[in-house]
Amino acid sequence: MARNGTRIQRVMKEVQGRITARQALPGARLPSVRAQARALGVSVSTVVEAYERLAAEGLLVSRPGSGFYVSGPIAPLALAEIGPRMDREVDPLWISRQSLDASPDTLRPGCGWLPDSWMYEQGVRRALRGLARATTPALTEYSTPLGHPPLRQVLARRMAATGIDVPPEQILLTDSGTQSIDLICRFLLEPGDTVLVDDPCYFNFHALLKAHRVKVVGVPYTPGGPDLAAFQAALDAHAPRLYITNSGIHNPTGAVLAPPTAHRLLKLAEPAGLTIVEDDIFADFETTPAPRLAAFDGLTRVIHISSFSKTVSASARCGYIAARADWIEGLLDLKTATTFSSSRMAADLIHRILTDSGYRRHMEATRLRLAQQLARTAARLRRLGIQPWLTPAAGMFLWCRLPEGRRAADVARACLKAGVVMAPGDAFSPAAEAGRFLRFNVAQCTDERIFTVLAEALRV
Amino acid sequence: MARNGTRIQRVMKEVQGRITARQALPGARLPSVRAQARALGVSVSTVVEAYERLAAEGLLVSRPGSGFYVSGPIAPLALAEIGPRMDREVDPLWISRQSLDASPDTLRPGCGWLPDSWMYEQGVRRALRGLARATTPALTEYSTPLGHPPLRQVLARRMAATGIDVPPEQILLTDSGTQSIDLICRFLLEPGDTVLVDDPCYFNFHALLKAHRVKVVGVPYTPGGPDLAAFQAALDAHAPRLYITNSGIHNPTGAVLAPPTAHRLLKLAEPAGLTIVEDDIFADFETTPAPRLAAFDGLTRVIHISSFSKTVSASARCGYIAARADWIEGLLDLKTATTFSSSRMAADLIHRILTDSGYRRHMEATRLRLAQQLARTAARLRRLGIQPWLTPAAGMFLWCRLPEGRRAADVARACLKAGVVMAPGDAFSPAAEAGRFLRFNVAQCTDERIFTVLAEALRV
Repeated sequence: MARNGTRIQRVMKEVQGRITARQALPGARLPSVRAQARALGVSVSTVVEAYERLAAEGLLVSRPGSGFYVSGPIAPLALAEIGPRMDREVDPLWISRQSLDASPDTLRPGCGWLPDSWMYEQGVRRALRGLARATTPALTEYSTPLGHPPLRQVLARRMAATGIDVPPEQILLTDSGTQSIDLICRFLLEPGDTVLVDDPCYFNFHALLKAHRVKVVGVPYTPGGPDLAAFQAALDAHAPRLYITNSGIHNPTGAVLAPPTAHRLLKLAEPAGLTIVEDDIFADFETTPAPRLAAFDGLTRVIHISSFSKTVSASARCGYIAARADWIEGLLDLKTATTFSSSRMAADLIHRILTDSGYRRHMEATRLRLAQQLARTAARLRRLGIQPWLTPAAGMFLWCRLPEGRRAADVARACLKAGVVMAPGDAFSPAAEAGRFLRFNVAQCTDERIFTVLAEALRV
Repeated sequence: MARNGTRIQRVMKEVQGRITARQALPGARLPSVRAQARALGVSVSTVVEAYERLAAEGLLVSRPGSGFYVSGPIAPLALAEIGPRMDREVDPLWISRQSLDASPDTLRPGCGWLPDSWMYEQGVRRALRGLARATTPALTEYSTPLGHPPLRQVLARRMAATGIDVPPEQILLTDSGTQSIDLICRFLLEPGDTVLVDDPCYFNFHALLKAHRVKVVGVPYTPGGPDLAAFQAALDAHAPRLYITNSGIHNPTGAVLAPPTAHRLLKLAEPAGLTIVEDDIFADFETTPAPRLAAFDGLTRVIHISSFSKTVSASARCGYIAARADWIEGLLDLKTATTFSSSRMAADLIHRILTDSGYRRHMEATRLRLAQQLARTAARLRRLGIQPWLTPAAGMFLWCRLPEGRRAADVARACLKAGVVMAPGDAFSPAAEAGRFLRFNVAQCTDERIFTVLAEALRV
């Protein structure tokens, strides 16, 4: 009896442990009495008694004919609770929300977009006025399934200019770059799959991949692209399904993919059956176009995505996916099922802006302004002992190493107290080394107070 | 030896069968040799030999130290291939795409929205002109995480008017009603969970739930709401996690939830731990507000969602979720991870329109126009022997039974050949009975040719 009592206790402990560790979530069905007995090497009656006692304690619910379930309110998918608990300062979700929520007078050198005053305001206003005079369907109707045909035609021409040969029928409009990647993940991934990302990479990739409950493996990024030996090793060790990267201007490092690396990367991807998502969001900031994986590959295993949030407007949401015809078909079904339709109005607006001659001039001016601001910010940071990892050819990012002995999370915490939002390296990479880096957006570094606050934070 | 050979064949057949039936998808890991041997009642060495032979045939790939995997290119999630293969005429995905893709001169009595000429065109134009004069952040910046605060305030006041007490902080803006439900499904569901829907229900719910790989159970809808005995039986038999419904004007039937049914439904939901999603998309078409489950329940287990696609504009995408504070927090993380931000411009536009005094007058006129068109269409259909299941109090839908011996799919096919897009009952319900119904949108039934084509299709 005593022995049996101990066994019942052991089964109860086992089940309770799984519930506490959230391995068995509320609403989950427990293993059948028989399976549990086998697994724990006890008798069926021991398991029955243990389950009954846990039900009496309210931890389990018995559903006759179905089994025992973990009780309690249903357990929603809490992204913040997946993976290691992170400090708020380095938590990708928290950094995103902090940047989005910042009051207008907050200084945001850590944020990933241009200040409004740098955006193509006049073009957006002009396009809105044009839209106000458009025919009714543009104003009130749903979009066609793939999205606004004139915009897809312009996008096909734009992609052709970087060597990507894709007809408008293989371009699917979405509401953002993030949504584009999300749809692709839903299309190609199963929970438990492995996805390769650059180490470091855009921090929201980590949050997005959490939502897909996949395993994320980082491949060290070098100034010419991913480290190919590490890439091969990751392919061998993890048989990943997907690799997500930026070819043009890499976030957060500002590095650019070298043509030979692009070639070799695709050679490695092929036998491994790897699909690659190329996020081209910073394309319009480039002065010399980098090689595009989608151009080399011809959209066989590469999916090319982008959006207009960084250059035209993040207020009107519009992104796209260029991919193989059969994949576009499947992605379209998923888009229709999960969002019904992308914004026709946003697509129409972006089309008006891209075909407005002012946009090209605006981007030329923006590139020049960024180049000047890049040089200025790098010099200013060096004076504080903060060293850029490389000098980017273009773009808004400077990935910088802090002086010896300084941790980015500490610096970010101190700066935040003074109203300055930073982007600490830990958010972009789980590697310990990244904890000594900060990503600076040079367009957001025009206010001298940033450097004063930073100098103070480094002193502590 | 012969016996052993037969056993190996049997294991091989079993595995091949699962691959052909897509129960084991390319990339999936097979059960371990030991587990497979146990499951099939054969020896470990038999399974090893079977797996090795399948690998030699190229059907499996062996990854040393990890196990055997189904080989082949990665298998994307093909919604069209989940569940029974459907005729195009009754396939929800195809009907959605058909309605979205229709050329302007196609007649669409089956489509789920108003013709453009019925929409609030002048209001949208005025709002666009206002937006063109707005300050820069409205034009180019991301939205705050929850979404445009002034719109959330207006929404809180609008919901208060139907008895739903919710502060603006518990309202999350999204890009559509569909996206709202999708986020909730991602938040609350696991593949394999069961979801209750009304039978019949909005056909895109079926497509959306396919994407979540859940089991869908329909509860017959009566003129006063779901059949409560069937609802209770479904709770007992399936322990569903979620129930998705319309309280206001039900799609496709036009029925309205009766207050006692609302009360009893919530009483049944509580002990079952069921969460309810109330899709309020047709709210502004009501002449007398129906009871809202969210009002009865106080947003404990009910999540209230809606959008403006049916009344203001389907071109500017804007929807919302009102829910418990802790759920809004988790939903916000998911929204940020998967879309980064909802459209600030669309939210600003909708805010301008809702607070424009013309909107209320426009909707009054629309309701009147719909009531007249409802009576006219019902009379016109009765003359063809097509009987409305009920006479709706408001809204645009008429759910109609065809004359004896006529199948909706056949009628829809014949009409489509004549350029008329119908919505056959099978798309809304898997029940055989629904195959004798068509859903008519009375606002899309102003063209006499529809009835001529329909009469002809019924004659065949």
